[in-house]
Amino acid sequence: MYRSHTCGELGIKDIDREVTLSGWVQKVRDKGFVVWIDLRDRYGLTQLVFDEERTPKQLLEQAKALGRETVVRVLGTVIERASKNPNRTTGEIEVLVKELSILNKALLPPFTIEDETDGGDDLRMKYRYLDIRRTPIRDNLIFRHTVTMEVRNYLSAQGFIEVETPYLIKSTPEGARDFLVPSRMNEGQFYALPQSPQTFKQLLMVGGMDKYFQIVKCFRDEDLRADRQPEFTQIDCEMAFVEQEDVLQMFEGLTRHLLKAIKGVEIGPFPRMTYDEAMRRYGNDKPDIRFGMEFGELNAVAQHKDFNVFNTAELVVGIAVPGAASYTRKEIDKLIDWAKRPQVGAKGMVYVKCNEDGTFKSSVDKFYDQEDLAQWAKITGAKTGDLILILSGEANTTRAQLSTLRMEMAERLGWRKPDEFAPLWVIDFPLLELDEATGHYHAMHHPFTSPKPGQLELLDTDPGAVRANAYDLVLNGNEIGGGSIRIHDKETQAIMFKHLGFTPEEARAQFGFLMDAFQYGAPPHGGIAFGLDRLVAILGGQETIRDFIAFPKNNSGRDVMIDAPATIDEEQLKELHLKVDA
Amino acid sequence: MYRSHTCGELGIKDIDREVTLSGWVQKVRDKGFVVWIDLRDRYGLTQLVFDEERTPKQLLEQAKALGRETVVRVLGTVIERASKNPNRTTGEIEVLVKELSILNKALLPPFTIEDETDGGDDLRMKYRYLDIRRTPIRDNLIFRHTVTMEVRNYLSAQGFIEVETPYLIKSTPEGARDFLVPSRMNEGQFYALPQSPQTFKQLLMVGGMDKYFQIVKCFRDEDLRADRQPEFTQIDCEMAFVEQEDVLQMFEGLTRHLLKAIKGVEIGPFPRMTYDEAMRRYGNDKPDIRFGMEFGELNAVAQHKDFNVFNTAELVVGIAVPGAASYTRKEIDKLIDWAKRPQVGAKGMVYVKCNEDGTFKSSVDKFYDQEDLAQWAKITGAKTGDLILILSGEANTTRAQLSTLRMEMAERLGWRKPDEFAPLWVIDFPLLELDEATGHYHAMHHPFTSPKPGQLELLDTDPGAVRANAYDLVLNGNEIGGGSIRIHDKETQAIMFKHLGFTPEEARAQFGFLMDAFQYGAPPHGGIAFGLDRLVAILGGQETIRDFIAFPKNNSGRDVMIDAPATIDEEQLKELHLKVDA
Repeated sequence: MYRSHTCGELGIKDIDREVTLSGWVQKVRDKGFVVWIDLRDRYGLTQLVFDEERTPKQLLEQAKALGRETVVRVLGTVIERASKNPNRTTGEIEVLVKELSILNKALLPPFTIEDETDGGDDLRMKYRYLDIRRTPIRDNLIFRHTVTMEVRNYLSAQGFIEVETPYLIKSTPEGARDFLVPSRMNEGQFYALPQSPQTFKQLLMVGGMDKYFQIVKCFRDEDLRADRQPEFTQIDCEMAFVEQEDVLQMFEGLTRHLLKAIKGVEIGPFPRMTYDEAMRRYGNDKPDIRFGMEFGELNAVAQHKDFNVFNTAELVVGIAVPGAASYTRKEIDKLIDWAKRPQVGAKGMVYVKCNEDGTFKSSVDKFYDQEDLAQWAKITGAKTGDLILILSGEANTTRAQLSTLRMEMAERLGWRKPDEFAPLWVIDFPLLELDEATGHYHAMHHPFTSPKPGQLELLDTDPGAVRANAYDLVLNGNEIGGGSIRIHDKETQAIMFKHLGFTPEEARAQFGFLMDAFQYGAPPHGGIAFGLDRLVAILGGQETIRDFIAFPKNNSGRDVMIDAPATIDEEQLKELHLKVDA
Repeated sequence: MYRSHTCGELGIKDIDREVTLSGWVQKVRDKGFVVWIDLRDRYGLTQLVFDEERTPKQLLEQAKALGRETVVRVLGTVIERASKNPNRTTGEIEVLVKELSILNKALLPPFTIEDETDGGDDLRMKYRYLDIRRTPIRDNLIFRHTVTMEVRNYLSAQGFIEVETPYLIKSTPEGARDFLVPSRMNEGQFYALPQSPQTFKQLLMVGGMDKYFQIVKCFRDEDLRADRQPEFTQIDCEMAFVEQEDVLQMFEGLTRHLLKAIKGVEIGPFPRMTYDEAMRRYGNDKPDIRFGMEFGELNAVAQHKDFNVFNTAELVVGIAVPGAASYTRKEIDKLIDWAKRPQVGAKGMVYVKCNEDGTFKSSVDKFYDQEDLAQWAKITGAKTGDLILILSGEANTTRAQLSTLRMEMAERLGWRKPDEFAPLWVIDFPLLELDEATGHYHAMHHPFTSPKPGQLELLDTDPGAVRANAYDLVLNGNEIGGGSIRIHDKETQAIMFKHLGFTPEEARAQFGFLMDAFQYGAPPHGGIAFGLDRLVAILGGQETIRDFIAFPKNNSGRDVMIDAPATIDEEQLKELHLKVDA
């Protein structure tokens, strides 16, 4: 037997009990006549004690010689501690050791196994199995488990059935790139790994499963931006015989349940905002509404003077930053530089200080009088002591820039509190999105999203104006879920494919099975998919998903721990009927 | 709103209620003056009624014209049925329809959507979304969901954490073939899809996760035998600081829980049997112990006469088939032919009838007297009226043949009852298995399995004799789970790799990360993996796994519904730095 108890459970109630513990040596404190060892396992830390009086000499010497991370088993007696540690659940006791066996030795770890480690990212990833020993990472993985259990039990109680869909499917070249899997048994043919189980969940609706969910890995062979993974996990859901309202209600329920069960936070009905409104008020389709600092559009009150920068701009738009009128000239210059960084991309920035005495001081005092500036303050909601920051230019670009600035200022103000949760539905997304590079429209959500009733005709005349039955669930400025009511008839689906540039033959070759299925009695249906990695990170009050993934890949898509991908045997290539084409 | 209720919930309590239902037209019974329609959804069937008296003429005509599988929504009033149907939960009521809208039309399905369908396997797979509408398949998928929920909740309550391990890993050429995934970003390099998360779960133990599980897809690019799938699902589990007994107790608990919670069957402690004993008594390492019919070894009492077939055989072994003495000569000849089929492979079969009058009649009366035959009856446990069937030859081959025969006879006797459950632990598996073709030993379980204490030395002298800390959980003649206590130190692992024919360089290249990990304080650990597809099928009282998988592949590894694998664009190949080598 390796243990009678874990290292996290002994207390005063166990005094005088003989116990066996196993775990890792966290720390050895050698005072000569007495040695204390913190023994660690998943469940906690327990202090072991050896001393000259009560411990055989040989055992005491053995204890002194133990290195960090050595795996040991001890047999001993629980005794009350002289100096208790109230910060530790086992802090009232220690175990006086009688027997100690070394289960496995340990080399000195390449970084310290502490909450704050001295290991850099690369080292932590290479030795991820050691990184996982650290409490923050361990707790993140346990937290992820807790979230998925809550999700599954909630959805199951609501009548959803988890159905596993296949991983070896067919490539669909539009959209993001697929990972491909050559078939040995079918020469020259390939499977693809799913970017999402989209078509399969729709087929399950055609198949009458009514309510489906799956927590499932998805794959995208994209050039990785920071904090993206080539394999990621979705909570994938679909319901039949529903309208948009049914889907919103159901998954608002799930999200509310998670916030309550996991964070103890009670949230009322989630606010809703159209895509257009979100863009206008926050410059962003996933606004962080934990705080205000909403956009004020200033065209009407800023384009009547001789300031050409504003007069030639499609949009002049500002935000009021509370209390920032006290920024020095130097601080403001630094902020302007920040906004001009390529990552933000502003050409310049106009500011207005709302002084304590009710006057205004701006960087454009040459062009505008106090009355103009008072108007700007009114529109941006600026109060005495605030600083108005104004950007201008092409509308979409300027909104995106000001949105980035808004988030930065909120960060500086301490408004992005990880323990505060502000969910929001963004609805009425455009159906199509213009790809500026190619001049083609592509599906903003995906090709199976249905247009709003009566808007199908607009596709020919004003495709960009067509709105979709599509919705995103936004939490603290992050899109945590997105979905839509789907097309469920062959004719509409064919029209969509046409507008997305598919020939009928291409549509048939790639999605023939789905269009066939729609002919055999497809019910109206819709759904949503949550990005689990991000959801868990946000619920956990953190921004990076990598620390919530046991074995993440780096930005080159490599697993540096196992050193994958790697070259393979010639024999394997041959069996797959492939040659590397250098 | 598409529905106020499902098609499975209305009853007498709802009389006079106005309801909205949506679903598929299962059946239209048109009596001219009255039309009944069975409306179907996942939850059941509800009878709709239209008649000349109460239904507007146009609506009645519309109802009459509805084709099977049309998707409709109806508004109507719940009324009591004149002739009730006690076999249906909604059988006491029907819905008198006021409004009907067709939500989607349906072509005539290629096979009937009934419990017993007229569709063959190929057609059912091509239109799997229609097949899933059939009650047996739908119920199987819901059953699978129920089983996985029970597994997750049980293991979670026992302190197990579900951790997702990566799908894009590294190829390990020994063992079964990997599916490979070319990397676009790393030219000429490949990921592999996991055959199991074996090394990752061991690293999680090194990482201190203590108790891990995952319900996870695994992949093997094998030539598919009947009822194997290239992608399959495992319940993958691992525990640290455990001995074999701990693992057996834990997963016996899980299995007992599943049998109780899902089948209502209470099972006591599971019997255990060594591999050697299982082979001797049942000729099989996964014996079905729902019934006896154990092997009787007859060498000692059958090799003393002039019957050369037996005298030259390594093993003479028989079973007693209850009541089969009444088989006619013709029936016995047919059985002998059955045993000689290539799938079984016996060269011949000797039989002994145990007559009602206490005498014996055998096919070898020329060589053996009544006393001999009485001995055989005693050893095989044959009673009056039984038929003893005897095979002989090389021991392993003969055992396998007789095991197949034993299962066939049990089937004929109706002893393989799907609602009876007889779990069994088979323990003490050999560590290595001789590959007759190559003369090399390979790991019977996998290269990470630990040998029994003190047997490491035997590896050099008698590798086949080394026993492992490996165990299988067998249920009704199927291996539903298998596992082992793992090696957890670098030295032993290196010895194992050497004996499996790895050079140190090969071992390092493929498993260096694991051997490194073992140096940083690896705890003793072990685990088990259950084949979920098979477990669910057996719990569901069925033998084929395909009907418990939503979208299975056929024996050529094809998904005939979506037509995958398929050829891909030249552009995609080029991006992957690959050429097809025809």
